[in-house]
Amino acid sequence: MAVKKIRNISFAGAGNVAIHLAPAMAGAGFRIRHIFSRTAAHAQSLADFTGSIASTDPGIIDDTTDLLLLAIPDQAIGEFASGLKKAGRYNGLIAHTSGTCPLSAISEHFGAAGVFYPLQTFSRFSTPEIRKVPVCIEADSVETETLLRQVATGISDDVRVIDSEHRALLHLSAVFACNFPNHLYVIASRILKQAGIGEDILLPLIRETALRLGDTDPLLLQTGPAVRGDLTTMQRHLHLLEDQPSILQIYKILSESIQEFEKYNKTSDIS
Amino acid sequence: MAVKKIRNISFAGAGNVAIHLAPAMAGAGFRIRHIFSRTAAHAQSLADFTGSIASTDPGIIDDTTDLLLLAIPDQAIGEFASGLKKAGRYNGLIAHTSGTCPLSAISEHFGAAGVFYPLQTFSRFSTPEIRKVPVCIEADSVETETLLRQVATGISDDVRVIDSEHRALLHLSAVFACNFPNHLYVIASRILKQAGIGEDILLPLIRETALRLGDTDPLLLQTGPAVRGDLTTMQRHLHLLEDQPSILQIYKILSESIQEFEKYNKTSDIS
Repeated sequence: MAVKKIRNISFAGAGNVAIHLAPAMAGAGFRIRHIFSRTAAHAQSLADFTGSIASTDPGIIDDTTDLLLLAIPDQAIGEFASGLKKAGRYNGLIAHTSGTCPLSAISEHFGAAGVFYPLQTFSRFSTPEIRKVPVCIEADSVETETLLRQVATGISDDVRVIDSEHRALLHLSAVFACNFPNHLYVIASRILKQAGIGEDILLPLIRETALRLGDTDPLLLQTGPAVRGDLTTMQRHLHLLEDQPSILQIYKILSESIQEFEKYNKTSDIS
Repeated sequence: MAVKKIRNISFAGAGNVAIHLAPAMAGAGFRIRHIFSRTAAHAQSLADFTGSIASTDPGIIDDTTDLLLLAIPDQAIGEFASGLKKAGRYNGLIAHTSGTCPLSAISEHFGAAGVFYPLQTFSRFSTPEIRKVPVCIEADSVETETLLRQVATGISDDVRVIDSEHRALLHLSAVFACNFPNHLYVIASRILKQAGIGEDILLPLIRETALRLGDTDPLLLQTGPAVRGDLTTMQRHLHLLEDQPSILQIYKILSESIQEFEKYNKTSDIS
């Protein structure tokens, strides 16, 4: 690989990850060269926004690109890399942005391969502060790592080297820290909607719960009836949920888990 | 009840609720008169902080107090009110701060009774911005409501009248919006600890998940493998959790619920 420094970056994929990463990289001085997406409108809109060329044909990507980022579904990564290699117009550095796909899925096709995984939830409805988003990189060589680090530090203050095995565990923990809490917000909203109470009433509570984390172990921040062993309140709650069996089940199983952790926590305090 | 305006407030209880409310009320110009707690040190420390008199004897509370706030465990509220009434030195306005205890638990003992429920998670490790905390009031008369509203607007910009039945549902939704997400943060931290990854890596993700709520329905903000129907990733996650059956169970049940809601959401889109 002749590249000593990344200048031109292309994207395969124009979904939530690409629409946040590409503009951040353009803002950091990289040139966004090509945007490939199977959906022409998505490719075009991101290309317009970043001064790039849009295409629904991955064959457009050639060696004017120094780094190709694959921001496409996990299942598509291996096949995409294999097809691109066969097309033969691009031989540069390739990295995927997935939390779960191992590096090997692309390193078996490309000589210079890596992972560029931003640990954040990306939605078209919000724009997280990219400089604070941890970027987890993994590379098949010291040279590739240096190049990925150059791009990562361009957009983020928190760059970490994490291998495929640890990244899978990190991704799992992110499901517990983000996807599942968001689903609980959905349930909380639904309970309020049924009661005719404005859902905005929960926002300060939700924000405080997330913001107070940091120096303190969340185990010590646990509040509520389960951790207090307040069975009367828990019985009342179960009664209120009796017509909604799957939400009732979630209530039970999370309350039991809180009590299990608390028991363990107290035991540790004593020993 | 002769009181036309609240000047002096006393507290029964010196736990997490009282240690946040009493200073806020002192800061809003109310005089904090007595702090009762069965734990002398707790009563004294909060009394010192708010220029009040501490006691482990509830009999200290007399008619120099205009409003007595009960920030004590739910189960203790009825008995405390009954005992105080029998002691006969206090006949003023009494309100509890519980999310689940009905107004009737105190209104059967006192002529002027209400509820003053701040919807927030209070921990000794953090101080939420009180002016943004919704204060839910309920009263046995228009006169009592006016007095409680005077105190509530003194400390918060968000005061709402919510009756006992709706407050119980609100409290239930708060368990889903706060207690359960915090427990999931505990599980996420544990997964990272086992992997030897610094837990601070999750903070931007947790904060973004909570902060992006507001104008957008959380149902539209759902991300992750379950909502995408990415069975391969979910299988990998279940495999990583196979030695931790109760966490595995939480993963399964929340993922199923996400998929159930998503199915319903898609059906609604079409119809």
